[in-house]
Amino acid sequence: LAASGRHPDVCEDRIIDLAALASKDRLACQPSLFERDSLNAFMAAGPEVWKTVQTTLTELASDIEALPSFAASDVEVLLPICVADYVDFYSSKQHATNMGQILRPQDPPLPNNWSHLPIAYHGRAGTVVVSGTPIHRPWGQAKAPQKAMPSFGPTTHLDIELELGFVIGTPSKLGEPVPVESATEHVFGVALINDWSARDLQAWEYRPLGPMLSKSFATSMSAWVMPFDAIKDSYVLQPPQDPPVLSYLRQAPWALDIDLEIELNGNIISRTNARNLYWNISQQIAHLTVNGSCLRTGDLLATGTISGSELSSGGSLMELTSNGATPITLADGTERTFLCDGDRVSLRGSTPHSPSVSLGEVTGTISP
Amino acid sequence: LAASGRHPDVCEDRIIDLAALASKDRLACQPSLFERDSLNAFMAAGPEVWKTVQTTLTELASDIEALPSFAASDVEVLLPICVADYVDFYSSKQHATNMGQILRPQDPPLPNNWSHLPIAYHGRAGTVVVSGTPIHRPWGQAKAPQKAMPSFGPTTHLDIELELGFVIGTPSKLGEPVPVESATEHVFGVALINDWSARDLQAWEYRPLGPMLSKSFATSMSAWVMPFDAIKDSYVLQPPQDPPVLSYLRQAPWALDIDLEIELNGNIISRTNARNLYWNISQQIAHLTVNGSCLRTGDLLATGTISGSELSSGGSLMELTSNGATPITLADGTERTFLCDGDRVSLRGSTPHSPSVSLGEVTGTISP
Repeated sequence: LAASGRHPDVCEDRIIDLAALASKDRLACQPSLFERDSLNAFMAAGPEVWKTVQTTLTELASDIEALPSFAASDVEVLLPICVADYVDFYSSKQHATNMGQILRPQDPPLPNNWSHLPIAYHGRAGTVVVSGTPIHRPWGQAKAPQKAMPSFGPTTHLDIELELGFVIGTPSKLGEPVPVESATEHVFGVALINDWSARDLQAWEYRPLGPMLSKSFATSMSAWVMPFDAIKDSYVLQPPQDPPVLSYLRQAPWALDIDLEIELNGNIISRTNARNLYWNISQQIAHLTVNGSCLRTGDLLATGTISGSELSSGGSLMELTSNGATPITLADGTERTFLCDGDRVSLRGSTPHSPSVSLGEVTGTISP
Repeated sequence: LAASGRHPDVCEDRIIDLAALASKDRLACQPSLFERDSLNAFMAAGPEVWKTVQTTLTELASDIEALPSFAASDVEVLLPICVADYVDFYSSKQHATNMGQILRPQDPPLPNNWSHLPIAYHGRAGTVVVSGTPIHRPWGQAKAPQKAMPSFGPTTHLDIELELGFVIGTPSKLGEPVPVESATEHVFGVALINDWSARDLQAWEYRPLGPMLSKSFATSMSAWVMPFDAIKDSYVLQPPQDPPVLSYLRQAPWALDIDLEIELNGNIISRTNARNLYWNISQQIAHLTVNGSCLRTGDLLATGTISGSELSSGGSLMELTSNGATPITLADGTERTFLCDGDRVSLRGSTPHSPSVSLGEVTGTISP
């Protein structure tokens, strides 16, 4: 993970070497939890261990110069987790409404199941890549509405999806649903996710089994996972759920107040916030496991695109440009509907109140 | 995997201990490839090693009594592979047509993209279980057409899906599509798959992102993976593809002549054959990677339900009973539309010509 092969924690431009700290008996846990190329062993150790390490590190941070560390510029970051299953939800009502209007103009914008269950699909775990990994423009099939036959070539509608991703630490058992009240006990932390999407491929392939190649070429994840416990101060009230949800999804409503932004080639093209998401991670876990499915350490559960109610708060170019009808003008005078080769996208997130907690960023540049 | 924790190969009612053979330098490969709880290390070693081991074992089998082995009855079988990503295709034209007629009677039975690309979705890798694992009847949401609101409870439409699963041995690189001509070089072997499905949950949840909880509770896999090389004698001509496929999917057409059957509580309720599948694994791999997605060792690529053109050759109860309208009568006089608690299902496969190669079976019994 770091140049030394050890797992580091970040502090300004220095990265603390947790394996070195643990080997000196200063973290009250086994060094083997960090002498790995992913966080999975530490995540599997459970909430007590996470809390001990976090508390100890907070105390040690008062004398940060004395801790073993690397310069951030000397470190090659790797994917922070070994992804077990990758699940992508669809939990922004505004995004689902916008997509329905664009993709299925003849139907009601929200599918009739949408308000009753947190819709989701499985994405490709094997193509989740760390922030900074170049994104190859995918090829595939698309079909223009007026054409009889599909065409084949590089996507012309390459898009961003601004998301948060929740990482599962402690597993659950096959056949035993996780109750909504205790679901967050399984959550190790949260990261930023860019679920790159090829809209032309998606429109042609997604009926009846959902998106596949339009998403599977790459999903970018931030290199740092923020412990879930560290963002609990950002709890706010969840938007009301109407119609009322079934009892297995009912809970004290909460959402996360996290400011989010999309930067494209140095231009901030969207600002939004996660607090308006209709479904929260407790409900998503309760739903995902109510059929007896188990959670595994390393499961990545993403929110789906997070969009606000303004045009300027869309979480994708498809929404920000009304499916290409109203291009965005960048500071260099060029216009964008969808992404061009060479475009660099960064997603950032942070809690709005002092002391702000930053989720860092996830970046990616489009290769031809 | 075996009682000893070593990987065995089966021979009648004895299971050969490959780790013990390799440690005596009799397999021309490292014992560490088999001293594991899955086949993944051996699968990652590549076609040359697979071939060497297979050839050597075939020679040694002439004196099978002299080989280190276990009695099959002493062995607890484990899932033979550590599943990376699980992809389920939809490659039986008859099945896709039947499902379209039942689920979307107002639309043409085959979606307009179906003949142009091998449709697929990602399933849940974490709930692929070995043959013999009890299958808990899943709970979830369903909505009767005449009702305004969904209900919650155990599925009343628990179904079988008869499939083959191809296991990826050697990986491919991110950003580098696998050409259709060389795709089978990545395939280690083939297994039997039962992709259990809750049809009532599926009908309610699957729009617009595809099936999720209706499938994710469990997928059963046979305990033995047949090396792909061992079934090459069963190649037959693939059914004609019309309209012609795009060039990246074009190849010398082939299919696998494998007889398949479904047994329910001792009654054979369906007989079909894999030779009628419209898409083959070469085309599926070429399609899956044409967008730059990579393959990983342990990827499981299932065919989707395999149905023939007769009512008695359906690969699911939904087809065999016309969505519950025409129950099956079993030898004990009871009727079935969908599965009851306590029902035991076995899927079997073998090549029809002498010497027949058996894929063994995958079984599962429904728990309440």
